Amino acid sequence: MRIILDAMGGDNGPDANIRGAVNAINKVKADIILVGKEEILRAKIKEFYGKEVEEISDRLIIHNATETIEMEDQPTVAIKHKKDSSMVVGFNMLKQDEGDVFISAGNSGALLAGATLLIGRIKGIDRPALAGILPAYKSQLLLMDCGSNTNCKPINLLQFAQMSTIYLKNTFGIEKPAIGLLNIGTEETKGNELVRESYQLLKEKSEELGINFVGNVEGRDAFSGKIDAIVTDGFTGNVFLKTTEGLGKFVKRTLKESLMKNIFSKIACVPALPGINRFAKTMDYKSYGGALFLGVKKPVVKAHGSSDEKLFEYTIIQAERFVENKAVDRMIEAFNKDKKE
Amino acid sequence: MRIILDAMGGDNGPDANIRGAVNAINKVKADIILVGKEEILRAKIKEFYGKEVEEISDRLIIHNATETIEMEDQPTVAIKHKKDSSMVVGFNMLKQDEGDVFISAGNSGALLAGATLLIGRIKGIDRPALAGILPAYKSQLLLMDCGSNTNCKPINLLQFAQMSTIYLKNTFGIEKPAIGLLNIGTEETKGNELVRESYQLLKEKSEELGINFVGNVEGRDAFSGKIDAIVTDGFTGNVFLKTTEGLGKFVKRTLKESLMKNIFSKIACVPALPGINRFAKTMDYKSYGGALFLGVKKPVVKAHGSSDEKLFEYTIIQAERFVENKAVDRMIEAFNKDKKE
Repeated sequence: MRIILDAMGGDNGPDANIRGAVNAINKVKADIILVGKEEILRAKIKEFYGKEVEEISDRLIIHNATETIEMEDQPTVAIKHKKDSSMVVGFNMLKQDEGDVFISAGNSGALLAGATLLIGRIKGIDRPALAGILPAYKSQLLLMDCGSNTNCKPINLLQFAQMSTIYLKNTFGIEKPAIGLLNIGTEETKGNELVRESYQLLKEKSEELGINFVGNVEGRDAFSGKIDAIVTDGFTGNVFLKTTEGLGKFVKRTLKESLMKNIFSKIACVPALPGINRFAKTMDYKSYGGALFLGVKKPVVKAHGSSDEKLFEYTIIQAERFVENKAVDRMIEAFNKDKKE
Repeated sequence: MRIILDAMGGDNGPDANIRGAVNAINKVKADIILVGKEEILRAKIKEFYGKEVEEISDRLIIHNATETIEMEDQPTVAIKHKKDSSMVVGFNMLKQDEGDVFISAGNSGALLAGATLLIGRIKGIDRPALAGILPAYKSQLLLMDCGSNTNCKPINLLQFAQMSTIYLKNTFGIEKPAIGLLNIGTEETKGNELVRESYQLLKEKSEELGINFVGNVEGRDAFSGKIDAIVTDGFTGNVFLKTTEGLGKFVKRTLKESLMKNIFSKIACVPALPGINRFAKTMDYKSYGGALFLGVKKPVVKAHGSSDEKLFEYTIIQAERFVENKAVDRMIEAFNKDKKE
């Protein structure tokens, strides 16, 4: 297996990308291909580790790409014109079977455009979307779309529900995953136009499509562990995702400072540390890695924009599992089966 | 001062409303008027406390209203037709100066419709909105709109920024409150159409209107304590609000179970309890009470839909402070001043 990593994309690129790949190389069986400005990547590796990339591992490979796509770039324009950017080169390698999965922490819009234009949608899916995994009570929550489609139609949300169902079934072994529609109330009449129309469409089509639609879900019930996935447009989904992240940071900081207020409270804390660590581990969104781009013909993983080296490491390990689980192949099979029946 | 409480509205009404009012009566100087079905309210009070309402306090008063507005009711229709509902009666009392502030945990849409139709907008404000207070790092975060305007235009978001500024200045004493626009990225080009247009309008008008606009803010930075208020449409704001609530519940549950896993960890926890309690106190959204309906001519407070007795108690205490701070009078003054200059 070969994992293609956009070595330049993300807020902390290329440093965090390089360090994450080096950290991960002995934890995965796959080769890791760092795509980016070769000169810079080689110099950084020399600086960080005092050796050449070839000396670190023969499974760690640099592939040159002279351009980069910036956060400010117009997605489609960037994909069409920056032909030698790390993102476009990475996509083309995936397309030509020079790798099995592509990971990037770069511009989300460009990643969507690239995945759609260069890799292509699975037949029957209008809009691929980012499926992210968040921690939830004694389980996890799939959030789709995490932010790739700012404007959506009801049909898109229906397909997100379908894809979530297939993905959770095949990858997590959940037989009838409970799919909710993110809304501001549980009643049918609540929400904006998109949500109200999507509710009706989901209600109408769920049985036929094998979706276990449980209705509207409010953010306050999303983490209860009773819902396996929530579907929403990419704007709302991204707000949801980043709000949980912001609150998580705030919780962590406040807990730490509350417990470590002074030397006495620090000492008082020691016996409780195993419990506190158990808590911190459950809450650590980093161990939940990147988001899979569901609906395209090959595995594309969006790493968190502000990924640090630890998060790149997790995302690389997770990407290997995505490939092993054949998440994308099974999605293609399921949609083809639907069409044939 | 007289606080008018919709005794019927909310998921736990009228029980939680009654108990909250009884809990609060000796913590406020104001009278509390319970508006609702007198027979039911009297019977419940007898059942809960074994005495008549008059025996509890001469400042606790029941005002009869024979109807109730349900969560499923169409807001405007309900306000227009359920003339003897606890909500409409409460609004009319506020209008006729039979009380100084009206609190309801009922149907948010109906509360907006009632506030606008029965109390009236402040001149210069197109859409009143719910301003909620959330905990943030060593401070608090004002969120506006929390959920009253599902569909918004850029001018509404500009006015939310203006109202937030005036409110935070007068009530919290923050001289130049930092106002952010909730978005899915910090760049100007990010977000849906509403957010992109609102950004431009805020950028253009902020100086003139005395708004300290700090640009786009992502949920992940919202709780950093660096932002005093975030403005957003009511759908996104409500998702934001309920997501923080849901995550808060999940955090609390997980922390408790992590620390109390077995008898050994329970004992180990005892010395750390002061720190853990400090943490829990900061995180308790209940102590932040209800949301003020900014932009209407009199103080209207939206209590949380799932308020329990504790939350009703807090909200009543907070409502007294709203009136004491003359939050609404100062809003009217500020907008009138704007118009005259």
